[in-house]
Amino acid sequence: MPHTPLKRKEDIGLSPYELKFRGRHRSREVQMTVFDVSADDAQEVAIRTVEELQPYKDSDKFIWLNIDGLHNEALMGELAENLHIPAEILSDVMEPATRPHMEEFDEGLFVSVKMMQFHENMHQISIDNLSIVLMNNMLITFQEEPSDMFHPVKERLKKHRMRFMARGADYLAFALLDVVIDHYIFILGMIGEKIEEVENKMVLGPDRETLKVINLLKHELSDLGHHIKPAREVIMSLEKLDTDFINPENDKYFKELHDNINQAVELLDYYRELLYDELNIYHSSMSTRLNDIMALLTVFSVIFIPLTFIVGVYGMNFDYMPELHLPNGYFIVWGVMLLIAAGMLWYFKRKKWF
Amino acid sequence: MPHTPLKRKEDIGLSPYELKFRGRHRSREVQMTVFDVSADDAQEVAIRTVEELQPYKDSDKFIWLNIDGLHNEALMGELAENLHIPAEILSDVMEPATRPHMEEFDEGLFVSVKMMQFHENMHQISIDNLSIVLMNNMLITFQEEPSDMFHPVKERLKKHRMRFMARGADYLAFALLDVVIDHYIFILGMIGEKIEEVENKMVLGPDRETLKVINLLKHELSDLGHHIKPAREVIMSLEKLDTDFINPENDKYFKELHDNINQAVELLDYYRELLYDELNIYHSSMSTRLNDIMALLTVFSVIFIPLTFIVGVYGMNFDYMPELHLPNGYFIVWGVMLLIAAGMLWYFKRKKWF
Amino acid sequence: MPHTPLKRKEDIGLSPYELKFRGRHRSREVQMTVFDVSADDAQEVAIRTVEELQPYKDSDKFIWLNIDGLHNEALMGELAENLHIPAEILSDVMEPATRPHMEEFDEGLFVSVKMMQFHENMHQISIDNLSIVLMNNMLITFQEEPSDMFHPVKERLKKHRMRFMARGADYLAFALLDVVIDHYIFILGMIGEKIEEVENKMVLGPDRETLKVINLLKHELSDLGHHIKPAREVIMSLEKLDTDFINPENDKYFKELHDNINQAVELLDYYRELLYDELNIYHSSMSTRLNDIMALLTVFSVIFIPLTFIVGVYGMNFDYMPELHLPNGYFIVWGVMLLIAAGMLWYFKRKKWF
Amino acid sequence: MPHTPLKRKEDIGLSPYELKFRGRHRSREVQMTVFDVSADDAQEVAIRTVEELQPYKDSDKFIWLNIDGLHNEALMGELAENLHIPAEILSDVMEPATRPHMEEFDEGLFVSVKMMQFHENMHQISIDNLSIVLMNNMLITFQEEPSDMFHPVKERLKKHRMRFMARGADYLAFALLDVVIDHYIFILGMIGEKIEEVENKMVLGPDRETLKVINLLKHELSDLGHHIKPAREVIMSLEKLDTDFINPENDKYFKELHDNINQAVELLDYYRELLYDELNIYHSSMSTRLNDIMALLTVFSVIFIPLTFIVGVYGMNFDYMPELHLPNGYFIVWGVMLLIAAGMLWYFKRKKWF
Amino acid sequence: MPHTPLKRKEDIGLSPYELKFRGRHRSREVQMTVFDVSADDAQEVAIRTVEELQPYKDSDKFIWLNIDGLHNEALMGELAENLHIPAEILSDVMEPATRPHMEEFDEGLFVSVKMMQFHENMHQISIDNLSIVLMNNMLITFQEEPSDMFHPVKERLKKHRMRFMARGADYLAFALLDVVIDHYIFILGMIGEKIEEVENKMVLGPDRETLKVINLLKHELSDLGHHIKPAREVIMSLEKLDTDFINPENDKYFKELHDNINQAVELLDYYRELLYDELNIYHSSMSTRLNDIMALLTVFSVIFIPLTFIVGVYGMNFDYMPELHLPNGYFIVWGVMLLIAAGMLWYFKRKKWF
Repeated sequence: MPHTPLKRKEDIGLSPYELKFRGRHRSREVQMTVFDVSADDAQEVAIRTVEELQPYKDSDKFIWLNIDGLHNEALMGELAENLHIPAEILSDVMEPATRPHMEEFDEGLFVSVKMMQFHENMHQISIDNLSIVLMNNMLITFQEEPSDMFHPVKERLKKHRMRFMARGADYLAFALLDVVIDHYIFILGMIGEKIEEVENKMVLGPDRETLKVINLLKHELSDLGHHIKPAREVIMSLEKLDTDFINPENDKYFKELHDNINQAVELLDYYRELLYDELNIYHSSMSTRLNDIMALLTVFSVIFIPLTFIVGVYGMNFDYMPELHLPNGYFIVWGVMLLIAAGMLWYFKRKKWF
Repeated sequence: MPHTPLKRKEDIGLSPYELKFRGRHRSREVQMTVFDVSADDAQEVAIRTVEELQPYKDSDKFIWLNIDGLHNEALMGELAENLHIPAEILSDVMEPATRPHMEEFDEGLFVSVKMMQFHENMHQISIDNLSIVLMNNMLITFQEEPSDMFHPVKERLKKHRMRFMARGADYLAFALLDVVIDHYIFILGMIGEKIEEVENKMVLGPDRETLKVINLLKHELSDLGHHIKPAREVIMSLEKLDTDFINPENDKYFKELHDNINQAVELLDYYRELLYDELNIYHSSMSTRLNDIMALLTVFSVIFIPLTFIVGVYGMNFDYMPELHLPNGYFIVWGVMLLIAAGMLWYFKRKKWF
Repeated sequence: MPHTPLKRKEDIGLSPYELKFRGRHRSREVQMTVFDVSADDAQEVAIRTVEELQPYKDSDKFIWLNIDGLHNEALMGELAENLHIPAEILSDVMEPATRPHMEEFDEGLFVSVKMMQFHENMHQISIDNLSIVLMNNMLITFQEEPSDMFHPVKERLKKHRMRFMARGADYLAFALLDVVIDHYIFILGMIGEKIEEVENKMVLGPDRETLKVINLLKHELSDLGHHIKPAREVIMSLEKLDTDFINPENDKYFKELHDNINQAVELLDYYRELLYDELNIYHSSMSTRLNDIMALLTVFSVIFIPLTFIVGVYGMNFDYMPELHLPNGYFIVWGVMLLIAAGMLWYFKRKKWF
Repeated sequence: MPHTPLKRKEDIGLSPYELKFRGRHRSREVQMTVFDVSADDAQEVAIRTVEELQPYKDSDKFIWLNIDGLHNEALMGELAENLHIPAEILSDVMEPATRPHMEEFDEGLFVSVKMMQFHENMHQISIDNLSIVLMNNMLITFQEEPSDMFHPVKERLKKHRMRFMARGADYLAFALLDVVIDHYIFILGMIGEKIEEVENKMVLGPDRETLKVINLLKHELSDLGHHIKPAREVIMSLEKLDTDFINPENDKYFKELHDNINQAVELLDYYRELLYDELNIYHSSMSTRLNDIMALLTVFSVIFIPLTFIVGVYGMNFDYMPELHLPNGYFIVWGVMLLIAAGMLWYFKRKKWF
Repeated sequence: MPHTPLKRKEDIGLSPYELKFRGRHRSREVQMTVFDVSADDAQEVAIRTVEELQPYKDSDKFIWLNIDGLHNEALMGELAENLHIPAEILSDVMEPATRPHMEEFDEGLFVSVKMMQFHENMHQISIDNLSIVLMNNMLITFQEEPSDMFHPVKERLKKHRMRFMARGADYLAFALLDVVIDHYIFILGMIGEKIEEVENKMVLGPDRETLKVINLLKHELSDLGHHIKPAREVIMSLEKLDTDFINPENDKYFKELHDNINQAVELLDYYRELLYDELNIYHSSMSTRLNDIMALLTVFSVIFIPLTFIVGVYGMNFDYMPELHLPNGYFIVWGVMLLIAAGMLWYFKRKKWF
C-alpha cells in the first residue's frame, strides 16, 4: 500500500488544471516511443519531442504513443496543447495515488488502472499506474516506470498488423487491459499456490511460522483487492459506456475483459475465505493444544498433590505419632498412596482425559 | 480448487483468437459422437472428422454433437471454420480454468458451466467443464473427459424422440443443464448428510477428529460454491436473455432451471451456516472443558497447598518447637487440617465449582 | 431439515413431465374433498374420483378441492388431463423436497410454500408442503398429510359464504396463505419466548445446559429461515405479478400478506441476533470465570509456594544449620512467613485480584 | 421486546375484517378529543360518541381526532361506518403487535409507527403504537395509552393556527411524525451518552459490571432497531408515494422526515459498532489479563519448584548422605539455590515476562 | 462524536421554521466577509449588516459571502428575508448536529457537509459543519468557527479571477468541496501512517500499548466514517441532480468530487480491514503466548512434581524404612530421579513442546 503520503498538505486546494507531478522518481529522463501501425514495418520508434509526432498524426490509421515517466511537467503541457487532452486528465495522470477510474472527454476516453507485475528475480510484486488515453487515431499510454509487460502485445501487433489496423485503437486498448488483468490472475494464482502450501502444512500441526505466513498472505490479498476492485468498476463502466471511441464490433472484447476481471475478483474472495478458514483452523488447534497441555498438567498435579501431602505428614517431628512406630507403617502408607494414584488414573481414564 | 495454475506466464498476452489448449490431458484421442434426433432410430454415431458432419447438417431437425477431449487444436480450427463458431468461443472452450459464463454470437449461444459428479467407487467428486454451443439446428457439447452423466438424457431422447424434435435444440440444452444442476443438488445433499452425522457426534462431545471433518466439509462447500454461484449467474442471464435461439415456449424450462439452481445456492448457504454453528459449538465446548480442567486443578491445589505447608512446618528441625512436644499435637494438627479442607470444600460447593 | 435425501440418484435426469412421487409415505389412501362455495349449505364433500368433480365444474362460482396425499400417480395424471394443469406443475407438487416457488401457467397460478404447525401434545413442529393451484373457478390445495390447520378458514367460509363468493377463489388463496404465515409468526413467537427464558437464566450465570439450549434454538431458527425466506420471495412475486387470476380488488390482501411475511422475517433476524448476543454473553462469562479460577489458583500458589520452600529449608538435615539452634528460631521463621504472606495479600489487593 | 405473545393461537385465521382488540389493557374508558383547526379558539374538545363528530365534518378546513384506547370494538365499528375507514385498517389499528407500515385506501392514507418515550421519573422507555389515518379534511390518531408527547405540536397548533390551516392535515401528520422521530433521536442520544460513559470506564480497566452494562445496551439498541428500521421504510414509502392526500407543496417536509429517520438509523448503526468495539476491548483485556495471571503463576512456580525439590533432597533421612556432613553444606546449598533463582529471573527478564 | 446532546428535550417539536441556534458557542461575534469576484481587485471585505450586501447583489457576476458563527438569530432572519433563503434551510444551518445532506429550493441549492481539519500544533482533529447555499449569483458559506481551510481557494480566486468568473458560483462550490474532501483524504492518510507504524511494531511482538493504539485508531476511523459516508451520499446526489444551479459544463468537476470521495471511503474501508487484521494478529499472538507460558509451566511442573514426591517419601520418619539403611540408598534415589527427569525431557522433546 501507499508509502508515498496519499495527499500532501501542500497539494490540498490545487486547481484540477495544475500540471504538477506528485510522485517521487525524477532522476531518469522521460522516454517516448511511437508505434505506427499503418507503417509496413510496424516498428517502435523513440522520439524526444511532441513535435516529432506530427508526421504520424496525419496517418489515416492509428498510432500508439507510450510514455514512461510522468515527471516532465513541460512535456505534459505540450501534450495537452498539441493533442487537445484536457489538463484535468493529464493532472490525474501525474498523480501516482490516483484511484482507478474512467473518464470521457470531447476527443477521447481516459482510463486509469493499476498494473501489477511479479519480478521473479526479486520475488516481489511491483505496482504502477497505467493511464490510457484513447482517441480517434491514437492510443497514448503513460507509466511511471518502463516495463516489459506489454511485450507480447507488441509481438502480436507486429505479426498481425492488419488485424489490429482493421479493429482500431480501441482493440489495442482492449489487448493492453487484457494483459493487465491476466497479470492480476497470474499473481492471484501464485498467492493461491502459497495458500495451498500453508494448507498442507496445517495438517501436520500449525506453528508460529504458519501464522505469520497466513497474516502476510491476508495482507497481500487486501492490497491486491484495493487495486483490483476499483479496476472492475472501471471495466464495467467501459463495457456499459455508449461512446464513439469504442467500435460496437469490439464490444464483445470488453465483455470478455469484464468476465476476466470478475474471475479475478472471485478468486480474490475465494482465497480470502480460504485464509480466513486457515486462521480459524490455527486458532482451533491452538485452543485444542492448550486444552491438552492443561489436561496433562492437571492429571499430574491432581495425582501427586495428595501423595506429596501424605509423605509430608509422616515427615513431621511430633513426639507422639503412633503410625510411625507400626512395624509395617511404611508399607501401609505406600499401599494407600498406590491406591489413591490408581483411583485417580481410573477416574481420568473414564473421563477420557488421555 | 485449481491445481493447474490459473494462468501460465506464457499464456499471458495470447490473442483471444488463438486456438491453444491450456489444460493437461493430451494422451487420449478426441472422441466425437453425433446424435441425429430426426433419424428414425435415433442413435449415437461416432465420427472422426468434421466432414462426416456434412450429411447431418442439412437435416431440417437438429443434431447433438458431443466432443470428449479438448486438446486437438486442428480439429477445433475445422469446427470454427465449418460451423462458423467464432474462434474466441472455441478458445474459451479450450481453457480449463475458464469461469462459467454465457455469450451470444451471430449464429448461436455459448454456455460454459462446471459439471460435478460423485464417483461412488472412488468416493470422490470429479469436476469438469461443460461447454454448450447452441445453434439453430445443432447442439454441440464439449467435455475434457468422457462421462456417463448424460446417460438418462440420452435414454429419454431415444424414447421421446418426437417430443425433443418438437421442442428443439434449446430444450435439449435445458435437459442437459438440468442434469448438471441435479448433480449439484445430489452432491450437496451428500455433504448435508455428513454434516448431520457430525452434528449427532457433537452431542456426545466433540473430539479432534470432529474438528478435522468440519474443516474438511467447510473447504468442500467453499469449492462447490466457487463453481455453483457463477453457474447461477449463467442460468439467470440465460433466463433473461432475449434471443432467437431459445423458443419462448421453452422459457418455462429455463425458469425451472433458475429455481433449481437457486435451491442449490440456498442449500449451500444453509449448510455453511450449519457448519459455522458446529464450529462454534466445538469452540464453546472446548472453552467449557478448559474451565472444567482448570477448576479441578484449582480445587485440588487450593485444598492441598495449605495442608502441605502445615505438614512442612512440623517437619522443621528447630531445637525448640513447643507444639511438637504437646501430647496431642499430632492429632490437633490433623484436626486443623481436616477443618481447613472441609472449609474449602464447602466454599467451592457454594460457588458451584463442581 | 431434509431427512429424505434431497435428490435421489435415480431421479436425476427425469423429465419434468414425469408424474412420479418422490416422497416416503404411501400407506394411506389419498383423500379428496370438495367445498362448493356456491352451494346453499357450503359443505365439505369427500369424493373418490376426478369424474365426481364434473358437476361442480360447471358452477359459475368457484369450488375448493383439497387433496391430502400425493402418492397416487394415476390420480395426478387424471387431474392433469381433466383440469388442464400442466404435468410440470403436478410433478413439482409430487416432489416433497421442492423449494417454495410460484409459477403462472395458461389457465392458472401455482404456489408452493411450506406449512408449519406446532403440535402441542407432541411438543413438536411438523413441516409439510402446501401446493396451491389457483384457476378461474377452482382452487386446488395439495398436502402430503391431512391437517386441521385450515379449520378456521373453513368456519369463515361457511359463515361468510357470500363474502367469499363475491371476492373469488384468489381471496380464498389469500386466506389460506394468511393462515400459513400466521403459523410462522406463532411458532417464531414460541421460540422467542424460549429465548427470553434463556436470557433470564443467563443473569444467574450460564451453565452447560444453557449453551445446549442456545445451540438448539439457533438450529431451529436456521431451519425456519430456510423455509420462511423463500416463502417471502413467493409472496413478493405474487404481489408484483400482473395476472388475470388475481382480481385487482384483492391486491390489498396480498400486500397484507407481504407485510405479514416481512414481520416473520424481521422476527427471525431479531431472534437470531438475540441468540448470537446470548452466545457472546456465554463466552464472555466463561472467559471471565476462567480468569477468576486462575486468579484464585495463582493467589494461593504464589502465597504458599515461598512459604513451603522456607519450611522445606528448615526441614533439611545438615549437621550444621545455625538457625535451628537459635532459641527463637522457630518463632522468627513464623514471623518472616507471616510477613511474606501479608505482603503478597497486600500486593494482590492493590492489583484488585479479589 | 414483545411480552404479549405475537400471535395468539385463537387469533390465527381471523378475517382481516374482524374488529377485535388483541392487546391487554381494557380497564380504562376510551377517550376521544377533537381539535378543530378552523375554529377561532382552536381548542381540544372531549367527545363521547362518533355522532358528536358530525358538526366538525362539514367544516371546510380540517379537524384532528385523537383516540386514546383501542379496546372499544363497538366504537371502532362506528368509526368504520361513519368515516368510511376500511375495516382492514381498523383491524390493524387494534393489533398492538402490528409492524410499522403504510397503506393507501380510497379515502385516505394509513400510517402506523411505534412511538417511544423516555419517562424520566421512572427511568424507563415506553413503547406504543401510533396509528395515523389521514383523510381529506380529517386527521385521526390512535394510541393505546394517553401520552403528552404531542403537547408541543398542540401548542404550535394553537399559536400558528393559520399556518396549519393553510398547509392542511398532511402537514399536521408531518409535525406528529417529526416529534416521533425526534424522540427516537433523543432516546438514542441518551443511550449514546451511556456508551461514552462505559468507554471512559474501560480505560481504567473493565470489570464484570462493565460487561453487564454493555450487554444491556446492546439489547436495548437491538430493540430500538427493531422499531426504528421498519419506521424508516414507512417514511421512505410516504416520501415516494404519489397520492392526493399529500400536497406536493408539503413534499419537502416529508423529505426532511426522511433525513431525520436516516440520522436515527445511522446513529443506531454507529452505536452498535461502538458497543461491538467495546466488547472486543473487554475480551482483549480479559485475554491479556489471563496472560498476566498465568505469567505470574509460572514465574513463581518455575523459580520455586526446583528449589523446593532441593530442600526436599536434604530433608531425606538416608543413613549415608555425604553432603549433610560437610561443614559448609548448608551454605553451599543456599548458594546454589540463589544462583538458580537469579538465573531464572534473568531468563524471564530477558524474555520480557515482567 | 457528538459531545453535545444530539437532541435536547426542549427542542423536540420545534417548528422547522424556528430560527433557533442549537449549538454552544455564543461568546464571539458573528463575522461576515464578502468576496466580489467581478471587482478588479477581488478582495475580501468584512461587512456587518445584511444591508451592506445590497450593492454586490446587482452585480452581473457572483459574490461569495462567508459567515463564521451561527448564533445570531436576528441576522439569520434578515438573511432569510433579504436573500429569499427558506427558513427551513437556515434552521438546518443553525443545528450543529445536522446530518450531511443536500436540498434544492426555489432559488438555489443547499449543501451541508462536515469539514475536518488537523491542527498540527494541537495534534487534534477539529470537526465543523460547512453549510453551502448556492444561488444564481451568490455563494454563501456558513461555519461555526472561523478556519483557514479555504485559504488556498482564496489565493486561486485572486490569481485566476477570470476563470472563476467564467465558470460561475457552482465552480467555486466545487472548489470548496474539493478542499473539504482533500482534507478527509489527508487525515485518513495520517491515520494510515499510524496503522503502518503499529504494523511494524507488531512484528516485534505486540504489547498492551499496541492494543490501546489499535482500539484508538478504530474509534477514530469509526468517527470519520460517520462523517464521510453521509458526505458521499451528498456528493452523489449533487452529481445526479438535474438542476439549473449547476452549469452542465461543470458536471465533470462534480464527477471528480465523486471519484475523490469514493477514494476516501475506500481508504476508510481498507484501513478498517487492516486494523481488524492487526487486532486478529494481536489475539493470535496472545493465544500463542498463553500456550507457551502454559507449556513452560507444565514442563517444569511435570518434571519436578514426581521428584519432589520421591524426596518427600524418604523424608518420612517411620521406624522401619529399609531403603534408608542401604549403603548406596541415597545415590540410587538420585539415579532414579535423574532417569525420570531425562525420560520426561525426552517425551516433551519428542512432542515438540520446546
